[in-house]
Amino acid sequence: MLHTFFKLSTVALFCSTAVAGAALTNAYAAEAQTERHTVEVTTVADGLNFPWGMAFLPTGEALITEKSGSLRRVGLDGVISNAISGVPDVVYKSQGGLLDVAIDPDFGENSWVYLSYSEADPAGGKGNSTAVARGKLVGNNLQDVEVIFRGAPKYESGAHFGSRLAFSPEGYLFITLGDRYSAMDDAQTLDNHHGKVVRIWPDGSIPEDNPFVGQEGALPEIWSYGHRNVQGAAIHPQTGALWTVEHGPKGGDEINIPVAGHNYGWPLATYGIDYDGSIISDKTHVEGTVQPHYYWLPSIATSNMIFYTGNEFPAWQGDLLVGALKASKVARLDLEGKRVMHEEALFEQVVEQRIRDIEQGPDGAIYLLTDDRNGKFIRISNADD
Amino acid sequence: MLHTFFKLSTVALFCSTAVAGAALTNAYAAEAQTERHTVEVTTVADGLNFPWGMAFLPTGEALITEKSGSLRRVGLDGVISNAISGVPDVVYKSQGGLLDVAIDPDFGENSWVYLSYSEADPAGGKGNSTAVARGKLVGNNLQDVEVIFRGAPKYESGAHFGSRLAFSPEGYLFITLGDRYSAMDDAQTLDNHHGKVVRIWPDGSIPEDNPFVGQEGALPEIWSYGHRNVQGAAIHPQTGALWTVEHGPKGGDEINIPVAGHNYGWPLATYGIDYDGSIISDKTHVEGTVQPHYYWLPSIATSNMIFYTGNEFPAWQGDLLVGALKASKVARLDLEGKRVMHEEALFEQVVEQRIRDIEQGPDGAIYLLTDDRNGKFIRISNADD
Repeated sequence: MLHTFFKLSTVALFCSTAVAGAALTNAYAAEAQTERHTVEVTTVADGLNFPWGMAFLPTGEALITEKSGSLRRVGLDGVISNAISGVPDVVYKSQGGLLDVAIDPDFGENSWVYLSYSEADPAGGKGNSTAVARGKLVGNNLQDVEVIFRGAPKYESGAHFGSRLAFSPEGYLFITLGDRYSAMDDAQTLDNHHGKVVRIWPDGSIPEDNPFVGQEGALPEIWSYGHRNVQGAAIHPQTGALWTVEHGPKGGDEINIPVAGHNYGWPLATYGIDYDGSIISDKTHVEGTVQPHYYWLPSIATSNMIFYTGNEFPAWQGDLLVGALKASKVARLDLEGKRVMHEEALFEQVVEQRIRDIEQGPDGAIYLLTDDRNGKFIRISNADD
Repeated sequence: MLHTFFKLSTVALFCSTAVAGAALTNAYAAEAQTERHTVEVTTVADGLNFPWGMAFLPTGEALITEKSGSLRRVGLDGVISNAISGVPDVVYKSQGGLLDVAIDPDFGENSWVYLSYSEADPAGGKGNSTAVARGKLVGNNLQDVEVIFRGAPKYESGAHFGSRLAFSPEGYLFITLGDRYSAMDDAQTLDNHHGKVVRIWPDGSIPEDNPFVGQEGALPEIWSYGHRNVQGAAIHPQTGALWTVEHGPKGGDEINIPVAGHNYGWPLATYGIDYDGSIISDKTHVEGTVQPHYYWLPSIATSNMIFYTGNEFPAWQGDLLVGALKASKVARLDLEGKRVMHEEALFEQVVEQRIRDIEQGPDGAIYLLTDDRNGKFIRISNADD
């Protein structure tokens, strides 16, 4: 960490030296052609240690998580802050660590910041699970930190934690989870959080109209089930509905529009096969389970996604932009209503690292985080003539 | 033509010598892997002179058109007949010639065969247009031949004739047309057949409920407008609706589900640009025009398409298979209802010629025609273990 910290400081120094005011350095910039826009791809900051999630503050800075457990502010001038104190301890192991970050819809009034992460068993067991905590961001500290969701059961694995955080227009908090890989069958039973999307209130209380409230043996936080590893979530700007994207095994990454109480089929039905080539299920359709809204085969290894609504890229308004780890690209799905009319691969030649997160900035530009020891915070802006 | 005829005979002789009974020769067979099935690709016959359309007879033979003006029977044993007599004269020029063939839904009782083709001006002018004629197939002759549709105006061009023929479950005949390229603006006006889909009864009479019947200045055959060059058509097996696929210019090939009286936007709105790189329209969305159901950019140069419904390929049932000239492939669109969930490129490495037509055979196999001087009639069958 000391080494990393030194490196971050160096980058910050470089950027603040190299640029005037809030202008971005062009040292890292590249132009790329797409079907509808020419874009400029600028590395705002690098040296981030496996950054995972980001959220923009009203100040215009981004809050960025590093999987190893640090939460930092990063300015559009490239300045990276020291780690924010008060962040819960995380299990930093394989796919686990500090994962997503979101700010409260009323952040301006309440300063709540939400973090999802891999949490050790508080009882001292060997297992871990995805948890969500919130704390009030005051200066460079998180205060009044409380755990508002704790995945059950605690399970010994370094894989498939999910997770993304998404607030619906009504103020519900959706948390997307993973099946913990070796516990995949749990995705079909309701007495655990493996392979589920859950919906809670921001204080951790359970909405009374959740689909399984009052059902014996079912956990009341559950919104939908039969998922594999959901690492992307976005709220449709017109309908307010939750859309998710999940990793398939070898192939079969899925976009879903999870409906309360519905079963999305994993591992009974899938378009993919296991990593060793073995068959998990030879079925793509199983009665009582919902087909994906859209899927990729071969897998592109989907990370997060956004509905683009900004003015920076008029031709992309309403489109769904899906980050991919494997192809180091963003898949642009041209939507008409909910229907995918066309898919375009964006930024393939100009982003050479796995894309872990994608967000739209307050300025309408598109921001990416790359999944690397020397992870980048990248800005995509319009370079049309 | 003499040379071609000799060549065809040679092929026929080869095939009937090389195989036993109705079995197909393996001399031309290749296996290919796809996402869901292993397929065997067999050249049933070659030496066809730019074949364009095919339709299966109750005998199991295919009727196949050659663009230069011949209609032939081709057996699944590879035997190619002499040209059937009685076929109307065609304007064989550039994209024009003898185009699609369809048999009447009640063929067993009435023996009607329908042909679309480029027809010279009967008044002796220099123009031409797409026409549709029908005749009764008796032995190797077409009898009682009558023109049931004649595109207007006659126009001097060798480009964008359409055309596919598709019978709806109610017995309507849909004819898909092209904009004649240099007359593209006509696609937006209703006093001509350029860039239209038309709907008639099989005897050429006009359905009373066609959308523009009784509208002054509008041709009553028109079903939908604002198309560019529609060379593929299929009826959805569940809904009975017409689906079409049309060539974009440079990019923007479109699948549409044409609704009576609707405007599909060409050339006001398009996802493509002209062949020389110039802009036809910078708009993809224009008020009052319908977005494509799905589109390709870059263009794959779509030809015909089918909804697959056979038992030979269970995993493809309900899918839309779209032939492509440019990529020498078939695009498989995995549909859930009308929604495209996924696209797969089939047969790319094993069909090395442009694919001009695709049909499902009575045996559930998939048949292709390739667009070449030495055009092939290809059978795709299941080779799963």
